Amino acid sequence: MRERCSIGVDVGHTNIRVARVEGGVPVEVRRERTDAPGGSDGVLEQVSRMVLEVDGDRSPVGVGIAGQCDKAQGVVRCGPNFFWPDVPFQALLSSRVQAPVVLRNDVVMATVGEWKHGAGKGVEEMACLFVGTGVGGGAVVGGRLLEGATGCGGHFGHISVRTDGPKCTCGRRGCVEAFASGCNIEEQVRRAITEDADASPMLMELCHGEPKAISSRMVAEAAEKGDTLSLRVRDQMAEALSSAVASVINALNPEMIVLGGTVLFGFPDLYEMVIQGTLGQCLRPAAEGLRIERSALGDLAGVVGAATMALERYG
Amino acid sequence: MRERCSIGVDVGHTNIRVARVEGGVPVEVRRERTDAPGGSDGVLEQVSRMVLEVDGDRSPVGVGIAGQCDKAQGVVRCGPNFFWPDVPFQALLSSRVQAPVVLRNDVVMATVGEWKHGAGKGVEEMACLFVGTGVGGGAVVGGRLLEGATGCGGHFGHISVRTDGPKCTCGRRGCVEAFASGCNIEEQVRRAITEDADASPMLMELCHGEPKAISSRMVAEAAEKGDTLSLRVRDQMAEALSSAVASVINALNPEMIVLGGTVLFGFPDLYEMVIQGTLGQCLRPAAEGLRIERSALGDLAGVVGAATMALERYG
Repeated sequence: MRERCSIGVDVGHTNIRVARVEGGVPVEVRRERTDAPGGSDGVLEQVSRMVLEVDGDRSPVGVGIAGQCDKAQGVVRCGPNFFWPDVPFQALLSSRVQAPVVLRNDVVMATVGEWKHGAGKGVEEMACLFVGTGVGGGAVVGGRLLEGATGCGGHFGHISVRTDGPKCTCGRRGCVEAFASGCNIEEQVRRAITEDADASPMLMELCHGEPKAISSRMVAEAAEKGDTLSLRVRDQMAEALSSAVASVINALNPEMIVLGGTVLFGFPDLYEMVIQGTLGQCLRPAAEGLRIERSALGDLAGVVGAATMALERYG
Repeated sequence: MRERCSIGVDVGHTNIRVARVEGGVPVEVRRERTDAPGGSDGVLEQVSRMVLEVDGDRSPVGVGIAGQCDKAQGVVRCGPNFFWPDVPFQALLSSRVQAPVVLRNDVVMATVGEWKHGAGKGVEEMACLFVGTGVGGGAVVGGRLLEGATGCGGHFGHISVRTDGPKCTCGRRGCVEAFASGCNIEEQVRRAITEDADASPMLMELCHGEPKAISSRMVAEAAEKGDTLSLRVRDQMAEALSSAVASVINALNPEMIVLGGTVLFGFPDLYEMVIQGTLGQCLRPAAEGLRIERSALGDLAGVVGAATMALERYG
């Protein structure tokens, strides 16, 4: 007889990951590009198919999705980068895969993953910040997941670090996401080289003269090779991320910060810069004894956390 | 037989308040100016005397103090505006008044007061921000007080709203406290009129030509009368406070925000400006259903909360 299993789903702006998870270990994993142009129907179709591919037993399903979620209704609320209307994703998916479904923000699920099976095992006070296509967060407070009144607690990506900063997709100015997310740095670099083709000959070459084709990975690669524009973007990311993480520390006084996300680790020295910048800014008693750790589960933190929550709830 | 009572102490930078509290009600209250020049010894002496004045029964004592506190040790850590060394205030006071003492930050205690006996009765998710000599905070998460790993959670005054902002006493740049605390606005206005005596003839008159004598109350009074410099200060306070409160909402998704502090309510329209500015900036699902309330206990929130915590712990 096999161990009790559950299914974790991580719906990011760029990729969807689905895994069958047993004892906190992803034993079967599927990865696909998100069918973003298909809208919520397309993504729902895609997720249902992927879930059925890894599991035929109607195991409970946990879904982390890049957006704000209403935990009572199981609704995705204005995922800021998807621009969906309010979608009752939990009920729709449940009816398609004929299994119970629990829905939360993607980085909240990644936080659960790191807390239960990753860098934060046994930790009672913890905050996570993940830098990918967007910037997301999650926290454990007093040994319990921070959910907030409606289930949209932990949106550290929408801490503003400059009241006069660039406009974020959420509407306010200077969110750390507007400085540091993969999506925003691509936009920033595209604008810079569209306005001035000489701003970065290296990036122009990497994108074969097509600014629209620029990816955050290219910017990171150019930074690695010393490209001035890309290094300036990296420095801005470090400044914004350090400020936001220090504010989270001053607000929550966690014993551990977990940093993750492919975009964070793509840039040379960025992780170290964020650690140093953060420690230089937070209150001394909050900094003492604080551990800053790298995500242990990497891009599978979300599916592990989502599956863990599904099992705890419906297992 | 009288109801079980406990003693609440609120040690601010400017005032000390001590009260005997019964059933959440302060039945006897003492207020004095803080003997700040006397250092930690002077303040300890003053607090001990005041406690013994309101109570001869060795009732449990709760102390809220403007500074960062280590809850395990009962130590006041580098209260940023007092500049004390680490002081084991809890043990020292306990030995003087011969009663058990519990120690926390002053606004954390005010948060307990508002939560148990004030604006937030019955609320499970709540955040407080108080604007006085400093800017402090506190929160209730999942029906429990946010304490953090070492007891210094809730320092929302040290959320930075501008990475390039003025230097705060804590060392970092652009903390909301550096823009909006009574202490900082006095400093700012003093500098402005020392550099240019014509910057505010009204303030020069109010302080009788002595910039050193300027208080935040004078700045508020001048703003009320239309003084340009004072209104500019008020607008900066509104911008910084709105940004910090919106970030707290995005991070914690509380069902209630409680705003308090004499400095906040002294300025014309400031409270309304902060509410509007906050609601215009926070994530929509976090804003829906959110209540923003004025502190119900005013300047006694701290003593009520401190006495409540003392009774819960030692009653």
